[in-house]
Amino acid sequence: MASEEVKVVTFWASPYGLRAEFALSAKGVPYERLLEVDHWYNKSKILVESNPVYKQIPVLLHNGKPLPESLLIIEYVDDVWPSPHGKHLLPPDPYDRAMARFWSDFAEKKLNSALKSILLTKGDTQKAAVEEALSCISTLEGVLEKASSSKDAPFFGGDHLGMIDCVLGPFSLWFPAYEIIGDFKFDLEENYPHMHTWYQALRTSSVAACMPDSDKLLEFVLGLRKMLCPE
Amino acid sequence: MASEEVKVVTFWASPYGLRAEFALSAKGVPYERLLEVDHWYNKSKILVESNPVYKQIPVLLHNGKPLPESLLIIEYVDDVWPSPHGKHLLPPDPYDRAMARFWSDFAEKKLNSALKSILLTKGDTQKAAVEEALSCISTLEGVLEKASSSKDAPFFGGDHLGMIDCVLGPFSLWFPAYEIIGDFKFDLEENYPHMHTWYQALRTSSVAACMPDSDKLLEFVLGLRKMLCPE
Repeated sequence: MASEEVKVVTFWASPYGLRAEFALSAKGVPYERLLEVDHWYNKSKILVESNPVYKQIPVLLHNGKPLPESLLIIEYVDDVWPSPHGKHLLPPDPYDRAMARFWSDFAEKKLNSALKSILLTKGDTQKAAVEEALSCISTLEGVLEKASSSKDAPFFGGDHLGMIDCVLGPFSLWFPAYEIIGDFKFDLEENYPHMHTWYQALRTSSVAACMPDSDKLLEFVLGLRKMLCPE
Repeated sequence: MASEEVKVVTFWASPYGLRAEFALSAKGVPYERLLEVDHWYNKSKILVESNPVYKQIPVLLHNGKPLPESLLIIEYVDDVWPSPHGKHLLPPDPYDRAMARFWSDFAEKKLNSALKSILLTKGDTQKAAVEEALSCISTLEGVLEKASSSKDAPFFGGDHLGMIDCVLGPFSLWFPAYEIIGDFKFDLEENYPHMHTWYQALRTSSVAACMPDSDKLLEFVLGLRKMLCPE
């Protein structure tokens, strides 16, 4: 493995880019970040060339071969690299694998759609988005309650990070910003105790090292809100 | 395998439902269809109970265990059942697997979005959707040119049906209806020769038996257009 070259074309604050980094970190794969400066309006040559269809981050470059799309990158990382503890991001049983994909897709579609709406809208539309986001968290609390058996196994993957953790984890880093923008509280500790334990455990797990500074991230997301949805 | 119970909750004309049927047929798995009569306004109890999150077809019921979402069903079918010829729907190499998922997702997102717009819009919006659909077909022609090496290997999976074939194939059954609704021609034979060979080969392949009658399907889609977008 020493000669392998693993790079991620990403943007430091992107939850999608962080998914790729979470997957690589969870499996103990060293990688280099190729950071986009302005992936909306001034895309790098390597981003455009490595993802000509969507021109979006993240792109995984494995020995020069490009792979876009964060969910596909997680599956690829799991297919290619062994885990430090012999545990994969996707469970071995086909039905469990399918359900890990289902809830990852749920976070990607339903929760993501609600969170985006909190960021981009105001008034009643935003209030409805907050309700929808909380409803998604409530659903995920139920999934997590079944998956995480104890404080030593707080993740959707049980005692180790799994696919759902890699998909949902980066979204959770933006939660403090969503609370300010949408004027609400997730109140995980009170209302979603398993999600609260998960949220805390994630921050001391093997992927903590690739998380951006929380103050810097908060400032970035609040700035993004001002730009996209001025008062 | 004799005691296995495999059912698909579906609607006869649905391209999403047909994906599940294509995957099962390609792998030679016998299954029963549980046909929805009106999956938009009068969903069956089994649909609502087996897919409480989305309440959408298709749902695979494998020995009573429910799995929604057509792309996840294809992966699950490939994980669970051996192929009659030892060939899987997804290729064995991790990068090839990732790219099969990428182009399946492309058909699901980009092509699907354009096709839906042809069905639902008129005028310039519809004309733009036709252009977008043809651009997607052109991209897929390039992918297929690399994948299908000869007339004996006309599929995205090469000499056998693969994941992309199961995702894209059902859409292609609606092509004649889209041509009438959008007043254009795909003209596969002239412009996209590999797609033309694929289109023909699909209709004599192992999945042909689960395809709906083409006249009945055309009548259904034209009726749907009238209902959703009256003159």
